[in-house]
Amino acid sequence: MSGRWWWWPLASPDEGLENMTMPALPPEPTHPYHPLGVDIPAYAANEAPVPVLLAALAGTLSFAVLSAALLARKLNPRLGASGLAVFCWFMMNTCLHCVFEGFFVLNHATVASSQSLLAQLWKEYALSDSRYLTSDFFMLSVESITVFFWGPLCLANAIATARNTPSRHALRIIACVAHLYGVALYYATSQCEFYFTGRSHSRPEFVYFWVYYVGFNLPWAIIPAFLLWDSVKTVTRAMRALDKAEVTLNSHRTRTQSDGIGGRRESKKTK
Amino acid sequence: MSGRWWWWPLASPDEGLENMTMPALPPEPTHPYHPLGVDIPAYAANEAPVPVLLAALAGTLSFAVLSAALLARKLNPRLGASGLAVFCWFMMNTCLHCVFEGFFVLNHATVASSQSLLAQLWKEYALSDSRYLTSDFFMLSVESITVFFWGPLCLANAIATARNTPSRHALRIIACVAHLYGVALYYATSQCEFYFTGRSHSRPEFVYFWVYYVGFNLPWAIIPAFLLWDSVKTVTRAMRALDKAEVTLNSHRTRTQSDGIGGRRESKKTK
Repeated sequence: MSGRWWWWPLASPDEGLENMTMPALPPEPTHPYHPLGVDIPAYAANEAPVPVLLAALAGTLSFAVLSAALLARKLNPRLGASGLAVFCWFMMNTCLHCVFEGFFVLNHATVASSQSLLAQLWKEYALSDSRYLTSDFFMLSVESITVFFWGPLCLANAIATARNTPSRHALRIIACVAHLYGVALYYATSQCEFYFTGRSHSRPEFVYFWVYYVGFNLPWAIIPAFLLWDSVKTVTRAMRALDKAEVTLNSHRTRTQSDGIGGRRESKKTK
Repeated sequence: MSGRWWWWPLASPDEGLENMTMPALPPEPTHPYHPLGVDIPAYAANEAPVPVLLAALAGTLSFAVLSAALLARKLNPRLGASGLAVFCWFMMNTCLHCVFEGFFVLNHATVASSQSLLAQLWKEYALSDSRYLTSDFFMLSVESITVFFWGPLCLANAIATARNTPSRHALRIIACVAHLYGVALYYATSQCEFYFTGRSHSRPEFVYFWVYYVGFNLPWAIIPAFLLWDSVKTVTRAMRALDKAEVTLNSHRTRTQSDGIGGRRESKKTK
């Protein structure tokens, strides 16, 4: 998207404040978020230390996902290791979409001033993307769709994987495309703004830009791409087998049943 | 998203200019776009009449799609009516994404001042969404992804449909989810902004809001939803058949071959 985005985390965090002369000094910043001067009223600094916040998130998430995995393994003992991994991925997504991101959608206007656990987690993450504290319209839109559509879809995926239902690969393709498109737009909108205006919503330090902004979102580009590739291959193999069976059966039947829309020309012949 | 969006197209187009007293009169607007006062420098009014612009678009698009349809029917005479309809849908999308939207992505900064056919079409459409004339970051991001990923994907879909390849339904699911998510975000971002700020990017007249903004985009919600439903059903039926075959074969084999990731537990038995 941009030929110069890679170097900007090395820029001084106080860039833009330099070379200013009195009496044009801006008021003391009331929050640590970028771009400098972005309006975040009623901001209250986090009370809990970062390691506590991260441990609470990781602990809760691990407990929820592992409990669900144990239950799935009990209900379907034939579920293999890879199936269990896919199940855990979609259960983790269900929790993140419905609880963590759901909290944001419902409380975006008060996150900056709140000291609840989830609000403090969002305030920490927002150091890498202040759009979460400014009720940015793109963030609100993409997060609302994620919470109300992709959250339940991930749950449906987890259940379909655990039960090994025939719809598992179709559901998986839908969820993976949604994740890939979502993360692509998430990166693209902010990098587009930086490219055209030089304005960044992330603090420039390595941990915020590379670990939080890039690193925490990258799994939603890599894992869905891998799962999508696998499901497309599997579905294509299934369609090839069915198409072959249809060709054989077709000589004895009036009309194919597996083509769906866009299949072969309907035959007018009677059997 | 909003409980009050439905009535706003009835508001006066000059709302906001009323009740103003001298000398606070704003400068004469230099363009017809909303929200009032939005910055569109170097705007030049269209020289061609609207019917000419629309006829040029419809004519070119119809010619391209029908030519491709005739070619597809010649190359694959067994392609049925529904297959041809799906082929035409994806060919039309390929043309729109790669040419019409491609023009926007490459020329977004100069569209407002240009008199080329495509620029005049964009200026006409932008009466329903001025974000296309302000290099809005969301529009640039979503259109770039559409041009570089969904355009070629729609071409792949058209080819797969015409050739009736086994990958046609997997590709169709990907394209349909992309279209549905894209149009949902397109509506959501602008309606979200209107809900929270009262600011609309569309002129309030019926033709701009309901015909251009709602009507011209609605097919990308309805047709992909219908195609997606059909493909998910077909793929699920294919997987069910293959799963049944696998269960039968599984008693004679070491390991299933059709499960993909998340399939049944790998058996350690030798045959």
